[in-house]
Amino acid sequence: MRIAVIGVGLIGGSIALAARERLDASVAGFDRSRLALDEAASLGALDERCESAQHAVSDAEAVFVAVPVGGLRDAIATTLSSAAGDCVVTDVGSTKRSVVGAHGGDSRFVGGHPLAGAETSGVAYARADLFEGATWYLTPTARTSGLLYDRLYRCLRALGARPTAIDADTHDTILATVSHLPHVLANVLVAQAARTLAEGGERLPATGPSFRDATRVAGAPSDIWTDIYLSNRDALAAGLEQTIQRLASVRDALKAGDAAGLERWNEDAAGDRRRLLEAQLAGGPLFELRASVPNRPGVIAELALALGRAGVNITDMALYPARDMTEGVVALWIAGSDAARRTEELLGGLGFPVARA
Amino acid sequence: MRIAVIGVGLIGGSIALAARERLDASVAGFDRSRLALDEAASLGALDERCESAQHAVSDAEAVFVAVPVGGLRDAIATTLSSAAGDCVVTDVGSTKRSVVGAHGGDSRFVGGHPLAGAETSGVAYARADLFEGATWYLTPTARTSGLLYDRLYRCLRALGARPTAIDADTHDTILATVSHLPHVLANVLVAQAARTLAEGGERLPATGPSFRDATRVAGAPSDIWTDIYLSNRDALAAGLEQTIQRLASVRDALKAGDAAGLERWNEDAAGDRRRLLEAQLAGGPLFELRASVPNRPGVIAELALALGRAGVNITDMALYPARDMTEGVVALWIAGSDAARRTEELLGGLGFPVARA
Repeated sequence: MRIAVIGVGLIGGSIALAARERLDASVAGFDRSRLALDEAASLGALDERCESAQHAVSDAEAVFVAVPVGGLRDAIATTLSSAAGDCVVTDVGSTKRSVVGAHGGDSRFVGGHPLAGAETSGVAYARADLFEGATWYLTPTARTSGLLYDRLYRCLRALGARPTAIDADTHDTILATVSHLPHVLANVLVAQAARTLAEGGERLPATGPSFRDATRVAGAPSDIWTDIYLSNRDALAAGLEQTIQRLASVRDALKAGDAAGLERWNEDAAGDRRRLLEAQLAGGPLFELRASVPNRPGVIAELALALGRAGVNITDMALYPARDMTEGVVALWIAGSDAARRTEELLGGLGFPVARA
Repeated sequence: MRIAVIGVGLIGGSIALAARERLDASVAGFDRSRLALDEAASLGALDERCESAQHAVSDAEAVFVAVPVGGLRDAIATTLSSAAGDCVVTDVGSTKRSVVGAHGGDSRFVGGHPLAGAETSGVAYARADLFEGATWYLTPTARTSGLLYDRLYRCLRALGARPTAIDADTHDTILATVSHLPHVLANVLVAQAARTLAEGGERLPATGPSFRDATRVAGAPSDIWTDIYLSNRDALAAGLEQTIQRLASVRDALKAGDAAGLERWNEDAAGDRRRLLEAQLAGGPLFELRASVPNRPGVIAELALALGRAGVNITDMALYPARDMTEGVVALWIAGSDAARRTEELLGGLGFPVARA
């Protein structure tokens, strides 16, 4: 397999390393920084150092655009204009609405976002196992080619990741809540602690584990995070507004000395945390289901998104086109009998006949 | 040494275990729960199971009151009324203003708060090494007996802890910032994530490390934390108000697309985090300083608090009363030459002659 990586920092470099090690792929790389490109090559991540993005992608079967969020739209545009008609192009940006809005109409483009390693940057930290077990969001649209989505999906599985389909808007709202908001809160906490201690003329002799945990990501690299915050500004601002309202209601309960209310609020949080953890641990025996689907654009996206919305995690997937290309069979491996039953219902509801293998 | 522990949960049980193992102390225990008392005894934490708090403290040289924050004031009052005139009495509550306000006038009482293990409860989790390396705040007042403070200080050092003097108001403001506020934010984050996912009909397939870290303490045991929140309601409500204002200004910067402002804010947070970490790692070679002090109530508290306020950490301390008890020598071990120099200046400023040993 021929893969191109545009931007060989921590994520791009790790993709290149993993693709060579695990996919036996030939990897062409480009980076605006010659230094980064040379370092990636010296780490064994590249088969070819290219002088331009156009050159790197020209004969690739899959391209990963792994530049900082601020330069993504332009880099994807350049890539799509140079890539072959049957090359799948994806990115690794932390927010998806903007790039999918710009390029979701191209059947070759699938937005992507691996949940891995945004706290350090630079190819020096690249590792072939960075994506082992990591969720890797994909945001196909109705225009996405099923065959190319399938190729990308297999590729990510081979890198060790767990690809999960999601629509771009939902992705950005969820990421605002589970990633960008915790980063903002960590920043606010360290700033407030520093100010509190300075005002009292005190030094912080030591903090408990709750402070260390809550502030571990404070002051994450500005060159990455300013762009992330801005590219998701609507969802993040809305999330902050909700947080402010929740904090105000805790403040009011404290001022009123409302013990019963505070206890209920704390118990609710305990329940929410338990459910979130349980949801992540959900699993069970694997079931293989085979759905017959028409060979039209968007059908794979439709199927993957429907399952994603229903909370069904696709453990593995394979696409078998019929010889005349008018239809095909999608094999899905689903963990847990409940999830498998739900999959049958959902795909049946979409009009796709399903059989258990 | 004869020690009494009132309330043998996680903290009380760990104090009892550590005192027997490391101080070779004889430990008398009382708990309103007969079950907890029996469990503590079966874990080897107690020499004597007592039928009442009065009985447990009657011939103790040091008493640790380790009941939940809501019952602390009454339990300390009972203890002080039964303890001997030369017995030091301390507590382990997470907030200090309330108990010091009630009992700070008794020369035998020193408020205390070990930064250890509030996330689990119950004597089953007790460990003799729970306090190893942990900061243990002490809140002496002008009325505190220097001899009894010194006895308690040595006792905590023997348990493996790092006792640090601080005034009660500052303690509660700092704890609001570095402990209670992170707990509130963790609760708010899980609640908001659960709601966001439910609204989108989505399940959280997996979260990044920032969410896991930020929500690890969400829904901490209500029987402990409702009291903690309420006992520190003023400082915590004020801290929340500050947080709300900080979040509102981030929200406004996002809405305005203020990249330069966001970057500056993020860089400031990085600097704050670095300084907080550096402050905790501060150290250096040990210096022994000896200060001559008059033997009057409050002098040790005055000295310990002055150093605490200046950010000087007392690595170890010993008190040598003169034979006629009119004055004494305090030996202080201070890490780092800067901190040692600052100590000499401060104690000189208080009118205490200082010599290097």
